[in-house]
Formats: sequence, C-alpha cells, structure tokens
Amino acid sequence: MMDSVRPRTEELIAEKLDLERLLAAGGGNTFRVADLGCSIGPNTFHNVEHIVQQVRQKYNHMMMTSAAPEFQVFFNDQVNNDFNALFRSLPPERDYFAAGVPGSFHTRVFPNSSLHLAYSASSAHWLSRVPPEVVDRGSPAWNRGMIHYGSAPKPVEDAYRAQFRKDMGGFLRARSEELVSGGMLVLVFPGLPDGMLHSETQAGSVIYCVNLSILDLVRQGVLEEDQLDNFNLPIYFPHPWEMRELVEENQCFSCIELEVVSPESTWLQQGGVGLRGWAVAMRAGMEELFARHFGGEEILDRIFDGASQKIAERAEVIMNTKCKELPLLYVALQRK
Amino acid sequence: MMDSVRPRTEELIAEKLDLERLLAAGGGNTFRVADLGCSIGPNTFHNVEHIVQQVRQKYNHMMMTSAAPEFQVFFNDQVNNDFNALFRSLPPERDYFAAGVPGSFHTRVFPNSSLHLAYSASSAHWLSRVPPEVVDRGSPAWNRGMIHYGSAPKPVEDAYRAQFRKDMGGFLRARSEELVSGGMLVLVFPGLPDGMLHSETQAGSVIYCVNLSILDLVRQGVLEEDQLDNFNLPIYFPHPWEMRELVEENQCFSCIELEVVSPESTWLQQGGVGLRGWAVAMRAGMEELFARHFGGEEILDRIFDGASQKIAERAEVIMNTKCKELPLLYVALQRK
Repeated sequence: MMDSVRPRTEELIAEKLDLERLLAAGGGNTFRVADLGCSIGPNTFHNVEHIVQQVRQKYNHMMMTSAAPEFQVFFNDQVNNDFNALFRSLPPERDYFAAGVPGSFHTRVFPNSSLHLAYSASSAHWLSRVPPEVVDRGSPAWNRGMIHYGSAPKPVEDAYRAQFRKDMGGFLRARSEELVSGGMLVLVFPGLPDGMLHSETQAGSVIYCVNLSILDLVRQGVLEEDQLDNFNLPIYFPHPWEMRELVEENQCFSCIELEVVSPESTWLQQGGVGLRGWAVAMRAGMEELFARHFGGEEILDRIFDGASQKIAERAEVIMNTKCKELPLLYVALQRK
Repeated sequence: MMDSVRPRTEELIAEKLDLERLLAAGGGNTFRVADLGCSIGPNTFHNVEHIVQQVRQKYNHMMMTSAAPEFQVFFNDQVNNDFNALFRSLPPERDYFAAGVPGSFHTRVFPNSSLHLAYSASSAHWLSRVPPEVVDRGSPAWNRGMIHYGSAPKPVEDAYRAQFRKDMGGFLRARSEELVSGGMLVLVFPGLPDGMLHSETQAGSVIYCVNLSILDLVRQGVLEEDQLDNFNLPIYFPHPWEMRELVEENQCFSCIELEVVSPESTWLQQGGVGLRGWAVAMRAGMEELFARHFGGEEILDRIFDGASQKIAERAEVIMNTKCKELPLLYVALQRK
C-alpha cells in the first residue's frame, strides 16, 4: 500500500530535508529515524530502509567533508506489539542501528529534540480508545447496534471526531517536542477527501457489511446484543481540513504537503470478486481487535464469511459507491 | 547480588562523572544510558533507576542553568531475549524514555559517540560461543567428559582464556566507539582474585559437582557420552590482570576502578544446607542453556538433584575451599 507514496517521500527528502542543519541540531553524527506504529514487519523494514537509503544518498551527493552519518532507527508501537517477532526478523545486513520503543505514540516516547525524521505508515488513524460516549447508553452518541460512525447518526461521528482531535493533538504535541528544529514528520494513513462522507466510500460500505453480519449473528442468538453494542472500531478517517486545523493549532510545524493520494489499487478495481478482498483485508488488519472482543477463530469465521456474503449481495451498489478506492492522506510537516 | 556494589557506583557518579562535559559532547539535552545484557528484569530496572537517580541528583546539586537533562535508557540483550516480557514489566512511573536494543554486545549495537554511561551487571562473563577447540576431538584442548575449564587440563583453560580475550576485546572496542568522550563504562561480573584458580572457588567446586552428576547419568546410560563431550559452559571468570591487560591494549579508556569485590553473601555462608543453594542458583541462571542441550524438565531435575547430592557429600571439603564467596569484578572505565 505504501509503495505508491514512495516517490513523494523521495522528493521530500531530496528537496526539503536540510541535512546539514539537522545533523548540527541533533549533535553527534547520528541521524535518528522513528517508525511510529511499526507493527511487526516486514513492510516496516522496507519503508525504513527506503528512507535511510534516500537520506544517505542525499548526504553522498552533498559531498560534505564531515564523516558520513550513522543511522539509528527506533521501531515504536504499543507495548503489546510483538517486539520479539520484530527483532527476530530484522534484516541481518541492515546498515542502521535498530531499537524498539514500546508505548503509545499519542504521548511522548522519545527525549526532547532527539529525532530527525519521524514516519508513520497506516497507523495514525487508530484512536487511543473507543470514544466513551458511543458505548454509553445514556449518551445521545450511544451507537446502538453499530460498530462504527460511518452509517451512524451525527452525534456518533462527532464523538469520533472529538476523540481523533484529542489523539492527533497529543500526537503532534509529542512529536513537536521530540523532533529537532528542521526535523520532518511524515504520515500516511487512510483519510477522506474534503466533503466526502465515510459512508460514500467502499471502505465504509464494507464495514457496514461486517456490521450487518454481526447483526445477523445477534438475531440468530450466536452473539449477545450487548456484545455488539459494546464493540466499536477505534479508527477514524479524517479529512484534510481536519488535519490542517490540528497542524495550525499546534503551531510548531510548517505544512509541506497535506493531501489525499490514491494508491495504485489492484484488487479494489476487479469488481465483485475483488470486492471480497475487502473482507479479507479488513480481517487481516483487525483480527486481533475482533478476537479480543468476540472470541476465537470460529466466531471470526462466521462474522467475516457473513460479511463476504453481504458484500457479494451488494456488489453492484458498492461498485457504484462514490469513492472506489481506499483514499490515503499524505501529510509531510517540518518542525519550525 | 548487585546491591553490594551500589555505594561504589554512587561514589563513581558523584566524583568521576563530568556531567557538563558529557552533556555538551552528546549534543542535545539527553543523557543516554545502556544496560548491556539486561535480561528480562526486574533487577535490570533497579540498577538502571539507581543510576538515573544518582545522575539526576548530581545534576540538581550542580544547579546548572540549562534545562534538566532527560534520560533515555537502552536495554540491550541478545535477539532471543524476551523483550516482550521486559517491555511489559517496565515500571509505568519511570522517569526515563525506554528502548530495547537487540544484538550481541561483543559487537557494535549503538551509533558512534551516542552513549554517556554503559552498564553491565552479571553478563560480561558470558562468552559469545564455546571455544571451538574444546569440542574438537582432534585438538589438545578437547575437553573430554568435562563441562568447563575449572578442573580441566591447561590447554582447555587456555582456549577459554583466548575466547574471553577475543570477546572482551570486541566488547571494549565497540564501547570505545559508542561512548562519548568522558563517558563511563561500568562492569560488574564474576571473576577471580589474581593468583586464584577457578578450581579453588566454591563456584568451581559446584560446577564440578554438576559435571560429576552428568557423568553418572552417562554411566547409567541416561545420557550419551557425546552429549556430555559436546557440552561446555560458555562462561569465563577472568582475573583483574587479564581485564587490565585488555583495557591497556584497547588504549581508549582510563581505568578508574578494577578490583575484586565480595558481595554480601548470605546463603553461601550457611554451611551444608546453604551449599545446596549453589545448585539451585546455578540451575536458575543456566537452566535454558542446559535445557537446550540436554532436553526437558525431567533430565534437568536428574542433573541438578544429582549435583545437590554430590555437593552434600563433599560439603566439608567445599566449605574449606580457599574462596568461600562468589567473587565479583568491579570495573569502571572512562572513555578518554
């Protein structure tokens, strides 16, 4: 998924990264990169190696007289990430020093002014928690029978947006403290073009089909109504205007790029059969989340088999959804 | 075990650590500490917190005008260490930023001039491998029927010493590159007073008893002779003169302290019953190593039950061993 944005990152490093200033600011001769929300690889390594390679190349072109910088890459994710697996699959021939950093990227995880480039791929749409109002029966934002805000009443979406504002606000605040002056923050994650609704995307339709499948299982008595009501996906797909607002409020970053890009989707355009790929992809990305709430393999099979069925039934409608792709937000900021 | 050397480390930090110089050299305002061979805690955290606390206290006493330093602690161990367990047990109220660094400390694991203090407790006596000669039937150093060099012929001890020289040489070389000028390296690990033989210590006697127990199991046909011949403990207890020689050869460090210290042993002085504690302690420290070679729980029970028996039979002799304690080497070096 991230391959499609590589040329952008290359251009960014080549044109906007002030290497001399960065190395002077960080002290020593180490260029420090953070991969925020790294998961367990191997995509993680490809992204990071691409960045290291680009910065090294830029350094070589500059023909600076000082010794070539060494790279230290910090792989960050929640403390329950499988760092053992990540460490065991580190490329043995890597030309950087690797470290793992456990902790939520919504708060500080690095010392002040210690990073030169922070990168986050497919992670910044994860919220730190389900907005508490949406599982509160007494709240107007109670999301009864639903698992996300896409097809839900407005107060639910507002609660999600408020949580995202809080989380991304904390994320930007933490990074503004951790990055050296001139340091770069690059985020790539699912988002929506300005003016588009979540329900107008195929992703939204697919989540709705998963929701319908769970509703069926509740009706069949396989799952409790409470189980459904207490489950909401802690992800939010922001619009560029929301990100722009948060960056402006933070005040510490210059915005270099902030736009919606389209990945070179393949299976998304293959019609009905390709559409089923959505359920597979969604299961792959969220299996643990669903399993923790609903139980083991068997019930997950029923949820996602049901979802595939719903997707197939609605194929024509879904194919005509306004947004056929999975839009990505590409955000590149420079620490003032 | 490390509690006994705390006052030394406190004194070292209070009197020898040039904080102003270190923070200037490292760039930024981060004081970087490495715990080399950290294992999975919780002792790890106590050691590190003690160091962070001492440095912070020193800083406060100096009443420097710049902002107080932040601390970043790197927990290093082999890639097969359980970093997941380590990360999950990190104290939530810690006042330092934590990172895990997988890799052998006999080689480089950190960028050039990036550490201010490197600490290693109970780890530096581990060799990177069993010296190859001691499991080579064609070599004069073949350690037939034995598991260590303590009671073995001289060529075996020489092979162990050569491996230690190589490993500790690599360790010092790597640290001399990673530490900033003025940075400190503190090692605490089992060693022997100059002139003392490994076989003259209780530790040596206990290893010998484990060896005898394995020999019994070979005689009983429970273990193969080959299994014994191919097993050697990859640990070496150096004398101060050996460490001094390696530090001098390295040329990058000033030696601040290098001596044998005695821990406040308790169960070691309790006589016959206390002696059995040795087998328990040895099993605790080396269980994984024995299990990987000899197999599961059951055979380990037989090996260490047998060893306890041997220790009890020889209690009087062992109690009169020249060295009744487990000597520790305390080595404090400053990067020139």
